[in-house]
Amino acid sequence: MLQIAILGFGVVGSGTAEVLYENRKQIADYCGDEVNIKYILDLRDFPDHPLGDRVVHDVNVILNDPEVVLVAEMMGGAHPAYDFTRAALEAGKHVVTSNKEVVATFGAELLEIARTHHASYLFEASVGGGIPIIRPMQTDLASNEILSVSGILNGTTNFILTKMKNEGAAFADVLREAQQKGYAEANPTADVEGIDAARKIVILAALAFGVLADPNRISTKGITGITQEHTAVADKLGCAVKLIGHTEKIDGRVLALVSPFLVPAANPISHVDDVYNGILVDANMLGRALFYGAGAGKLPTASAVVADILDVLSHRASERRLPAWRVATAEDMASSEDYVCRRCYLIEGCQRCAAKAKAALGTEDCVFLEGGTFALISRPMSEKDANAALASTGLTPRFCLPVLD
Amino acid sequence: MLQIAILGFGVVGSGTAEVLYENRKQIADYCGDEVNIKYILDLRDFPDHPLGDRVVHDVNVILNDPEVVLVAEMMGGAHPAYDFTRAALEAGKHVVTSNKEVVATFGAELLEIARTHHASYLFEASVGGGIPIIRPMQTDLASNEILSVSGILNGTTNFILTKMKNEGAAFADVLREAQQKGYAEANPTADVEGIDAARKIVILAALAFGVLADPNRISTKGITGITQEHTAVADKLGCAVKLIGHTEKIDGRVLALVSPFLVPAANPISHVDDVYNGILVDANMLGRALFYGAGAGKLPTASAVVADILDVLSHRASERRLPAWRVATAEDMASSEDYVCRRCYLIEGCQRCAAKAKAALGTEDCVFLEGGTFALISRPMSEKDANAALASTGLTPRFCLPVLD
Repeated sequence: MLQIAILGFGVVGSGTAEVLYENRKQIADYCGDEVNIKYILDLRDFPDHPLGDRVVHDVNVILNDPEVVLVAEMMGGAHPAYDFTRAALEAGKHVVTSNKEVVATFGAELLEIARTHHASYLFEASVGGGIPIIRPMQTDLASNEILSVSGILNGTTNFILTKMKNEGAAFADVLREAQQKGYAEANPTADVEGIDAARKIVILAALAFGVLADPNRISTKGITGITQEHTAVADKLGCAVKLIGHTEKIDGRVLALVSPFLVPAANPISHVDDVYNGILVDANMLGRALFYGAGAGKLPTASAVVADILDVLSHRASERRLPAWRVATAEDMASSEDYVCRRCYLIEGCQRCAAKAKAALGTEDCVFLEGGTFALISRPMSEKDANAALASTGLTPRFCLPVLD
Repeated sequence: MLQIAILGFGVVGSGTAEVLYENRKQIADYCGDEVNIKYILDLRDFPDHPLGDRVVHDVNVILNDPEVVLVAEMMGGAHPAYDFTRAALEAGKHVVTSNKEVVATFGAELLEIARTHHASYLFEASVGGGIPIIRPMQTDLASNEILSVSGILNGTTNFILTKMKNEGAAFADVLREAQQKGYAEANPTADVEGIDAARKIVILAALAFGVLADPNRISTKGITGITQEHTAVADKLGCAVKLIGHTEKIDGRVLALVSPFLVPAANPISHVDDVYNGILVDANMLGRALFYGAGAGKLPTASAVVADILDVLSHRASERRLPAWRVATAEDMASSEDYVCRRCYLIEGCQRCAAKAKAALGTEDCVFLEGGTFALISRPMSEKDANAALASTGLTPRFCLPVLD
């Protein structure tokens, strides 16, 4: 019997118990032994739950029990999740987590502590919910140099943008519907302002480039400013508006940012709709690969947590190779102003204005829209250069969105 | 220094050498030691290649060298690839392969031999080229019961179908272009008749359900009969025609088949175009996940071979858990006639004929086309039942294609 503990018995925590129970036979077969939830740490009691007798309120019961080999942390929030994770690793216990805030903020330190104590620290569920992405990047792509990662990393905002596109609805109305359906939280700030996506792209950047950026310090734009004008322009240009977390290297420095992008139909990520997530990895040998699926939800996320549990328990005899992340310094990071891509501008003006803008942005890619506006897509340029070029024409854009080719 | 041997120095074999060389630093870091290609087995000599001095013509040189811990088999074809694989495993060497024919035909036996000799037998590159799919199914989805797998598994036919759709071109013309571009072989039978896809879906079915079917005995339809009529009907119905390998369980038996399908736009697999592959896995906890990328090509396929090499070499201290496959008996397999799905019929006839067909197929989903025909999509029915229901109306369909929802 392999004894584990669950920290946090909310949506993902109780889902993890459910996955372990539902598929218990194949799980026991995979691990070579039954997996038993010995403790559940939560502030609440669950007297009516079949596992209600496992609930404890003091983490030390778990930390001091040598039978517990693994702790699954699904508390959410930075504290006390970080503190309990650290204590568990220091007690030599393996930890798996779905907590992107802890991984994005303290991942470098926790991986180091895990290494020192010959424990594992795995976090497949922290990005892309149930979608396999962390482990494939570490194993299947181990023979590759990662060139870039671009992802739709937040299901709530993707649901909102998909509805805005398909139904011509306004942001505020769709947000309200998403809240009613339970796809968006009562306080949707972390989702709609891109904060959740920022944590996830920071984790993916660390996997790709070994440097963990501060998620609060990368350029992060959400979707609260996206209107029907954006979606209409996108549609006219054969694109979709998507909230994208993107990371690549620029001259040896790591760029990580979150922004609404125009995504052309030729990019497979443009077809990732509704609450789904999709992560596009560009690698030097493999080329582009897309990982698509349920980016959130009780059972999909729990499925990824349990995959980590099985990975740890089935390899418990051998030492694991954990990634070594360095905390990013200011010098490690590239400025989002230096990010080179095509950029879409919507501008009010006549044919002559359009000719000027086309010349300045080095493009012939321009369409006129109703209401005396035109949209054009620049040649690949940095934000700095593109804005300067446009400013030289005296034209002021109504908006500018980067294009994800 | 970790010594390995390459069997077959064709496209994938030389690509594997290239990946090992290009990314040698991170590969050495990952394995904890440098990886060296000690031997290359090929009938030919490569006097001008930097690794030309490693070429041998007798496999026994490799089998009898105790320094060689791993053999990468990329010869293609059943023999002597199977025989050399077997001999290498019996000599206690790990084997990785891109050879779908050998895995689909002899996989159950070779996995058993590997287990007996404490060796590994990995085959990530045998399905989906560079796309991570085998390892994610075995690790990330280990906590799930697999419900079905549906995939665009052959890049050549997907290129042809995409061209037919986008350019209204005829099958024979596009095939000729694909041959000129090197996307299709001079003898394209294995691709266009679905034989290549059948081998791959048999491997995926074995991973999902533990039973290895004979790829020559599953229902296999290719795309040689697909015309502009099919693509036009698909377009009218908001679908794409795709060659799909599909597996699921029906009443405890394994269904595996290859057929052209209509794929509605809501299914992410419908957007997998050109030479790309996409594999959709439906799992009981995760739900649907799509794995998309380059399904063939020198470096992508080599990237998957090297991922397997790294997996073996970085875990060389510990015994690996290999899947146990059983060779399918007739009783293990479901008949494709029992496969329940929606089915699209194109029928010549008037409004009254359409009313009869709609009633027989339990559907209101019907559109009239030019030339006095109508297309309708049945409710989910088995092929047997759908054909019998339609026959009872006296109507003869011009074609029938299953729908992948």
